[in-house]
Amino acid sequence: MTTIINLNDIERKAAEQISHNAHEYYVGGGADEITIAENKRAFQEISLLPRVLRNVSHRSLETSLLGQTFAMPIGIAPTAMQRLAHTDGELATARAAAAMNVPMILSTTSTIALEDVARVKGVSLWFQVYVYKDREATRELAQRAAQNGCKALVLTVDTPYLGKREREIRSGFHLPPNMELPNYRALGTTSVSQGKEESGLARHFTENIDPALTWKDVEWLRTVSGLPVVVKGILRSDDATMAVEHGAAGIIVSNHGGRQVDTALATIRALPAIAEAVENRLDIMLDGGVRRGTDVLKALALGAKAVFLGRPVLWGLGYDGEQGVKRVLEILRDEFDLAMALCGCRNVAEITRDLLYE
Amino acid sequence: MTTIINLNDIERKAAEQISHNAHEYYVGGGADEITIAENKRAFQEISLLPRVLRNVSHRSLETSLLGQTFAMPIGIAPTAMQRLAHTDGELATARAAAAMNVPMILSTTSTIALEDVARVKGVSLWFQVYVYKDREATRELAQRAAQNGCKALVLTVDTPYLGKREREIRSGFHLPPNMELPNYRALGTTSVSQGKEESGLARHFTENIDPALTWKDVEWLRTVSGLPVVVKGILRSDDATMAVEHGAAGIIVSNHGGRQVDTALATIRALPAIAEAVENRLDIMLDGGVRRGTDVLKALALGAKAVFLGRPVLWGLGYDGEQGVKRVLEILRDEFDLAMALCGCRNVAEITRDLLYE
Amino acid sequence: MTTIINLNDIERKAAEQISHNAHEYYVGGGADEITIAENKRAFQEISLLPRVLRNVSHRSLETSLLGQTFAMPIGIAPTAMQRLAHTDGELATARAAAAMNVPMILSTTSTIALEDVARVKGVSLWFQVYVYKDREATRELAQRAAQNGCKALVLTVDTPYLGKREREIRSGFHLPPNMELPNYRALGTTSVSQGKEESGLARHFTENIDPALTWKDVEWLRTVSGLPVVVKGILRSDDATMAVEHGAAGIIVSNHGGRQVDTALATIRALPAIAEAVENRLDIMLDGGVRRGTDVLKALALGAKAVFLGRPVLWGLGYDGEQGVKRVLEILRDEFDLAMALCGCRNVAEITRDLLYE
Amino acid sequence: MTTIINLNDIERKAAEQISHNAHEYYVGGGADEITIAENKRAFQEISLLPRVLRNVSHRSLETSLLGQTFAMPIGIAPTAMQRLAHTDGELATARAAAAMNVPMILSTTSTIALEDVARVKGVSLWFQVYVYKDREATRELAQRAAQNGCKALVLTVDTPYLGKREREIRSGFHLPPNMELPNYRALGTTSVSQGKEESGLARHFTENIDPALTWKDVEWLRTVSGLPVVVKGILRSDDATMAVEHGAAGIIVSNHGGRQVDTALATIRALPAIAEAVENRLDIMLDGGVRRGTDVLKALALGAKAVFLGRPVLWGLGYDGEQGVKRVLEILRDEFDLAMALCGCRNVAEITRDLLYE
Repeated sequence: MTTIINLNDIERKAAEQISHNAHEYYVGGGADEITIAENKRAFQEISLLPRVLRNVSHRSLETSLLGQTFAMPIGIAPTAMQRLAHTDGELATARAAAAMNVPMILSTTSTIALEDVARVKGVSLWFQVYVYKDREATRELAQRAAQNGCKALVLTVDTPYLGKREREIRSGFHLPPNMELPNYRALGTTSVSQGKEESGLARHFTENIDPALTWKDVEWLRTVSGLPVVVKGILRSDDATMAVEHGAAGIIVSNHGGRQVDTALATIRALPAIAEAVENRLDIMLDGGVRRGTDVLKALALGAKAVFLGRPVLWGLGYDGEQGVKRVLEILRDEFDLAMALCGCRNVAEITRDLLYE
Repeated sequence: MTTIINLNDIERKAAEQISHNAHEYYVGGGADEITIAENKRAFQEISLLPRVLRNVSHRSLETSLLGQTFAMPIGIAPTAMQRLAHTDGELATARAAAAMNVPMILSTTSTIALEDVARVKGVSLWFQVYVYKDREATRELAQRAAQNGCKALVLTVDTPYLGKREREIRSGFHLPPNMELPNYRALGTTSVSQGKEESGLARHFTENIDPALTWKDVEWLRTVSGLPVVVKGILRSDDATMAVEHGAAGIIVSNHGGRQVDTALATIRALPAIAEAVENRLDIMLDGGVRRGTDVLKALALGAKAVFLGRPVLWGLGYDGEQGVKRVLEILRDEFDLAMALCGCRNVAEITRDLLYE
Repeated sequence: MTTIINLNDIERKAAEQISHNAHEYYVGGGADEITIAENKRAFQEISLLPRVLRNVSHRSLETSLLGQTFAMPIGIAPTAMQRLAHTDGELATARAAAAMNVPMILSTTSTIALEDVARVKGVSLWFQVYVYKDREATRELAQRAAQNGCKALVLTVDTPYLGKREREIRSGFHLPPNMELPNYRALGTTSVSQGKEESGLARHFTENIDPALTWKDVEWLRTVSGLPVVVKGILRSDDATMAVEHGAAGIIVSNHGGRQVDTALATIRALPAIAEAVENRLDIMLDGGVRRGTDVLKALALGAKAVFLGRPVLWGLGYDGEQGVKRVLEILRDEFDLAMALCGCRNVAEITRDLLYE
Repeated sequence: MTTIINLNDIERKAAEQISHNAHEYYVGGGADEITIAENKRAFQEISLLPRVLRNVSHRSLETSLLGQTFAMPIGIAPTAMQRLAHTDGELATARAAAAMNVPMILSTTSTIALEDVARVKGVSLWFQVYVYKDREATRELAQRAAQNGCKALVLTVDTPYLGKREREIRSGFHLPPNMELPNYRALGTTSVSQGKEESGLARHFTENIDPALTWKDVEWLRTVSGLPVVVKGILRSDDATMAVEHGAAGIIVSNHGGRQVDTALATIRALPAIAEAVENRLDIMLDGGVRRGTDVLKALALGAKAVFLGRPVLWGLGYDGEQGVKRVLEILRDEFDLAMALCGCRNVAEITRDLLYE
């Protein structure tokens, strides 16, 4: 019997419960998976210098992102095909996000239609998009998001092509026959991998995603959708500055969970230079390797306004659907709240860089 | 058969002899226990540059702390519920401390009443306190310490809430039915964990400890008790300066043995900046990770006047009660004495920073 | 069943298929083989800072080396006795090189005569030479290379004597009786190791190679052959400058795959100082530890124009002869192409140092 | 079957052949044996930048130490009780040293009398001494060394007391009944450990060695013996300067093979600051962790004139007596000679610091 105390416990539980096909797809990354390991290790290598005797009896975790107020500086990162983890898929995730008052970024590659997820009461939904070669289809998708009440578009920019995900290839990843990707209907297909063909997902990308994307497309996307655009997949300070200049409302410092180019820098290491370049001109968020409340605190200390959870949400789903995702968010919230208290912080503004030993 | 040569031998012996309940409680720390490992590793990574040909035939280990003279720069840190380790509990520890002429910090959470421990002949007792929401109870406790001859109050400041000690939760830690916490009678209870309820200790803290503590309470505590106050749990130089400004007689550089916020900086790494800020305006002490005589020497070289032992004393107790604690102190004294000799130091004042390779 | 996805898969496959004698010869290095491990580890420790939104829909891998244009910045390093890996030996390698339009450096110690390899259609052959005590034999060899259409001579300069290759000695390395080294006929012998004598190869070197070599011999070699000379085995910036001053057309930053003096610096770590010293006055190439497309990109970012593959080509040969070598080149090309795309580079000129986190 | 190729092979062989009592005594060090590991690791972490094309066909390893010329910059460090390793003990070592033309430092704690070892033809014997509380006995010992043709006294200064050698204690180290320490006759005893008493050697030290030693004793020793004095056990640049000022002819940078205070700095790391302070005013030697020819080269590059071998000589003895010690010296000479050639050095003066990557 494993007591469920932390996010690793939930990962272990989920690994027992979901299919090998899904597990290998979720857990894997690019090439030698060095970036996956580094994302976590980099957090652990940062040491804290807690403040004491600051009267921490009342604390607020409230966080403002894109002008909205959320319960805490933790959101749900876009991850594909959540019905692989639990039959309720993205609906369960959205319900948990709504219950916890955190933003959820819905993946274009969801196994439940954007419209259905958007109907979940109280959810603050942001919609993740790629830009397709078929710009009309892209425009349609962006406008569907706006029409269904999404609060932002999250443009993934680190994926002109899919990374070399060797685990997926070795395990012969495939979308089970009873699942589809309904958001793709504009592209004329809602299914990715017929049979066990290894390259199904990669082929889909090569065929549909537009690798010719440039910074101008950020502005185009904002214009056609009328929504704020968050640029996801920034690791460089000059690209962060470009995001500011092209009117992005926010950026997510991300290496796609280590699933794109391997040996990409750990996100928490990339953050400081980006925060310095941006100077609060937009909201900086971060994903990759967050597993502990102290990780959240470290990201905020280095300039992020919030962190987003990818795999841990999938493990929560796999473990116990909506309740599992809530459990993940509660555990991390409680850990983060405790980390704040033990570091002498009463609100997120007090989480400053001098809390880190450098 | 294990020959008992060093503190690790005693730890191994004790692990065989005490209950799993006690062992997991003592050995564990916050979250991933990274700070526990770092506390030790940081000492090992500091290299010595011994001096030679200094006539080390006569050496004195004598150390002055809070105006008192002790046999060596080693004291006993406060640890809770020592009867879990040995039936004589805190009495055995106090007798060993008296025999060795080192200070003992008695935990508020002791399994033997302060008054009884204070009666041990020759012991220099310092009393560790938390400040409770019930300030009258706190005042009563501080005054009991003063009336019973305690030489100082040691205010633990890194614990507005208890850390997330996962081992404790997993092992279902509980205070055995035949033990109580008599110092808590002012709070209207002397028992912490009824049955096997996991959160007994955490709940007690949440209910009683005052997380609203600020630096002013240091002054209040000194006033109501008339005792010098040592602030335990400092890792930052600005907090060390605050301690000076609020009239503390000393500080203990501590991360609570890695039991509070995980990834807190290793104490020996935190020490140099603190020593520089304090400039001898109060006595700096340190705990966390001390296992070898060379560790003591390194702490003194970096600015501490003494180190305090937490878990090793518990292992000594578990191994052989009073004699076990004496054995721990003797081994560390002999190792430290030898380290001094081999580094060319005749007294603690000669242990200077140039003995370290930096 | 191992799916063949990356170069490590091919290495594992080859290890099952080739003789122990060949495997130990190929895989081993000097002394404790620290340099072999470091060559690879140094690449992995360099983190990437990918650029995004650069329109990477069209990419060119085209690379110019010694005035020739190749399909990509990847070539085949000289490795000895390729018939140990596959019966077609150097012919298979040359055919693969021709098919992929990459340069092949043929080792003097080949198991197929230079003339026969040179007849492979379309191959850009560079000929690796040592300078022998018998300068007439050396001149003859250099001139044979020129007469047979080789495009360059590659002078190995890190081997005045053979390194201490302990694996070879332990496994009793020997050239099988049905193989010979036909290029050596000018030296009056075409066979190296009679029977199982351990020191066959070392003895051959001691007897024939001239350890009295100096920089002047670089000029001599160019003069007698009329071919551009590439100096292979440079790790120092002052030696790189010497190469410029003595008219070398290129250098290969190399530690001989960790087979010469052990603890020699990893090549990718040696590269930056060399690139700075050379300032584009000749073509810088590099070998040692390249296993991933990102390694190629890192070498180019630090100043190399191309990388050369040693052992991976042998594993390709051992796995499947000509097709295996092609597979190796295709895998690395595809990985490099993807790394370029994911780092926002459209051609090799755009691979600049700011892509690396330093 | 293990082929004997390097010093580690000989260590493994010796471990099979000598008694557990002897092995544990030789192999062990202070406390956690961190310094033993670091001595070796520090060499491995230094990377080489070999020079090429320097005409290395003729090389000289000749080295001058204390005005004498030796075959190479490698000598034999003093190690105690060599008859534990081989019945011929120090005689075998001396014969090997003579045959190889390297200096041998004979330990005071030898199992064969100084006079007998000194009679070995052609040996350049240096005599290691401690200064005893009984100065007359010390003077007698020093004068015996001079009268028997020793070329220098080597004063060990890092051992006012014996380190805490836990392996020795655990294995119950004892001098076998058929061995004695004849040099100690001046102290009125030639036997150290009666029976299996753990502290025999430590007690002997405490009783006889004078921990009151100071720098003046270096001068006294030179005066009474008329011999040059080498100070062994220096790790600090200020102590090295003291050695110069007190007329030492040389120093040995040493941490006593990791047998004294644990976590003492690795000798190769201590060397650079010492070399800088000394500025060639005396001969700097080094011991500790030397196992490869490249280690010798690195020590010379950082300012040592020679290295001395401790444990490897004992393993050579244990493996094959005089022939075994010769084998050790030959292997290291050949490795060092090869390292010189492969780094472009023709003599020891050409081994300069720029060969190291820093």
